[in-house]
Amino acid sequence: MPHKLPQGFRAAGIYSGVKRNTSKLDLSLIVSDRPAVAAGVYTQNVVCGAPVELNRQRTPSESIQAVVINSGVANACTGEQGMRDALEMAQRTADACDLMQTDVLVMSTGVIGEMLPMDKINPGIAAVAAVLSESEQALIDAARGMMTTDTTHKIRSRAIQLDSGEVQVTGIAKGAAMIGPNMATMLAVIMTDAAITVEAAQVGLKDAVDESFNCISVDGHTSTSDTVLLLANGAAGGKVLAGSDLAKFQATLVEVCEDLAQSIPTDGEGATHLITVEVHGCKTRPDAVTIAKTIADSPLVKTAVAGADPNWGRIVSAAGYAGIAFDPAQVSLLVNGMLLYEKGAPVGFDAAAVSESIQADRDTGIVLLLDEGTASARFWTTDLTAEYVRLNADYHT
Amino acid sequence: MPHKLPQGFRAAGIYSGVKRNTSKLDLSLIVSDRPAVAAGVYTQNVVCGAPVELNRQRTPSESIQAVVINSGVANACTGEQGMRDALEMAQRTADACDLMQTDVLVMSTGVIGEMLPMDKINPGIAAVAAVLSESEQALIDAARGMMTTDTTHKIRSRAIQLDSGEVQVTGIAKGAAMIGPNMATMLAVIMTDAAITVEAAQVGLKDAVDESFNCISVDGHTSTSDTVLLLANGAAGGKVLAGSDLAKFQATLVEVCEDLAQSIPTDGEGATHLITVEVHGCKTRPDAVTIAKTIADSPLVKTAVAGADPNWGRIVSAAGYAGIAFDPAQVSLLVNGMLLYEKGAPVGFDAAAVSESIQADRDTGIVLLLDEGTASARFWTTDLTAEYVRLNADYHT
Repeated sequence: MPHKLPQGFRAAGIYSGVKRNTSKLDLSLIVSDRPAVAAGVYTQNVVCGAPVELNRQRTPSESIQAVVINSGVANACTGEQGMRDALEMAQRTADACDLMQTDVLVMSTGVIGEMLPMDKINPGIAAVAAVLSESEQALIDAARGMMTTDTTHKIRSRAIQLDSGEVQVTGIAKGAAMIGPNMATMLAVIMTDAAITVEAAQVGLKDAVDESFNCISVDGHTSTSDTVLLLANGAAGGKVLAGSDLAKFQATLVEVCEDLAQSIPTDGEGATHLITVEVHGCKTRPDAVTIAKTIADSPLVKTAVAGADPNWGRIVSAAGYAGIAFDPAQVSLLVNGMLLYEKGAPVGFDAAAVSESIQADRDTGIVLLLDEGTASARFWTTDLTAEYVRLNADYHT
Repeated sequence: MPHKLPQGFRAAGIYSGVKRNTSKLDLSLIVSDRPAVAAGVYTQNVVCGAPVELNRQRTPSESIQAVVINSGVANACTGEQGMRDALEMAQRTADACDLMQTDVLVMSTGVIGEMLPMDKINPGIAAVAAVLSESEQALIDAARGMMTTDTTHKIRSRAIQLDSGEVQVTGIAKGAAMIGPNMATMLAVIMTDAAITVEAAQVGLKDAVDESFNCISVDGHTSTSDTVLLLANGAAGGKVLAGSDLAKFQATLVEVCEDLAQSIPTDGEGATHLITVEVHGCKTRPDAVTIAKTIADSPLVKTAVAGADPNWGRIVSAAGYAGIAFDPAQVSLLVNGMLLYEKGAPVGFDAAAVSESIQADRDTGIVLLLDEGTASARFWTTDLTAEYVRLNADYHT
């Protein structure tokens, strides 16, 4: 199925000269032909990039019309100069598209630890605005223009039949390490031509992100620039969604976010496995998320999967240092559906078979069962390979 | 200066057949000729090995006479069988040395995710007890018998002149990854012939560990077996330490623990740098420790040091996700004494010079300055290299 922009949206992506590799794109623009309801969910890092600060001030909103995104160098940890650069990107975008600069949002991703090359970005903004289009290729270009070490662009789009008519939900995302080593950050923009209230947009986006983008990690390093935006411009012509139509829309929003979120560790730097960690039987969902994330972030678990090693000890011991109290005598563990550990002790299992199942499939499933309650969580991560280290130690060369 | 056992202690280390490499040692024994005051500090992991459980029940104590340590396979996450094995190690040691089994402590380190090969350890305990000696070589053998992926054995010993006479403080430690990948765990035994009370031993050891072993990490994975023991047998003949003698003893205990602690990341798996992270200007010491540890555990910071990359963005952003509130506009950063970032923004600095200074020295110093208060902390870690990943992904081959 071809990817489709929702009605009333145009997009573009170009090469502006920031990245060294001239076959890549590094500047993207998304424009709505009318004011859109906009919501944002941002990094929890105390140190955040200037674009995040700017977007936080501007969302939720009923009047956003453009999002400009640069990649290659991130506007992060850059002090007052960073805010001047972010405001200048908004102003140049407004000039090129005949908008108010306050109706523009800004995103930035790439190498952290350098200043933005505004001499390339400024003329680039005029150039990218000149090629805005409703075409599928323009959407792809916009998705490519936000890539850093991603090896594929990431687009998901769905049409939904509602009682009030058909609407489209289309998202683009990037992120190969959670923060750039090399490059940086998880960014996503979800566009829809549905009409929703500002409140529905903000609450719905927050819930969708909690189930999706907040349940992935590549290296546990929280970016200073992580941003997910939802733009809803109502161009499909239906009325403002409520009741079952709003519920259907929300379910689709979650699906699109989950699909985009999973595509990020799938494309993680140097990754050879997508690891899904499920934790069941916790007192609360935050407990389950914390334990799942601790397992997912353990370099010893990640290297074990890279080495196809069914090491129950590393997984169980990672759960143990998550800072959540549980009875270790009630812990059981399955890897790829095979029982390795039951009620606090290892069981006899066919280690060669488990190892082969890890080797044979890009997806590895880890399921940890506790006996503290009924809450559960799913978390997605990658394995850790020598290639990851190479990408992150030697990226300048 | 030769290393020396304190008076009244004998030690030994042998090869019992657990490790594949027959040139290595894998079973150590330490015996005091009289009951010793003993204190222990143990892993915070909810899932802990049976030897940790056993030692927790037995310390603090006034009657410990032996510590038996196996390496090669760890008794961790092993359920009820694990406790049976730990008790059997204590009983065999007691039999061989004519002690009560309740006066024996047990340590275990090595591959996690396997059961202890008791058929090798049981005869090994009789064999190691037969070669106990007061010699320096016996001390070295005991330090070697607890090694896993360590490349060097780790011993520190100091004599202190007290008003009540000379006493000796000697420690042995192991630990190459904080938990075994391959192999496992931080273990240390500090021996002294000073006479101290059980209370002074427990409080003093806890304080010393907080300043030393609790401020190192290799990969952030908290072992299920981490243990530091202090044995004080009073064999030097002086009276029970108090006042300034006790203070001098405590200062030496901290020094020995700091020296041993630093030797662990120095010998970290695949490490090419020892990184010292100092954080100053925090509200509280726990805040400073948390921020220092978050920087030290960031794979992006650790790969940057491996690549000699003076990346202020990775370090500042790691501080930002430590979960401690601070004003990012007041953050400054020095690497190897050179200012990279001041009051919330990067400064012009000679990147080539900083990079060369990282390359030229095995020690890298990171100093982060905040403006929230007067508390500070130091934390030691290693860089992250492709060799670390190889050691942890392919350790079975």
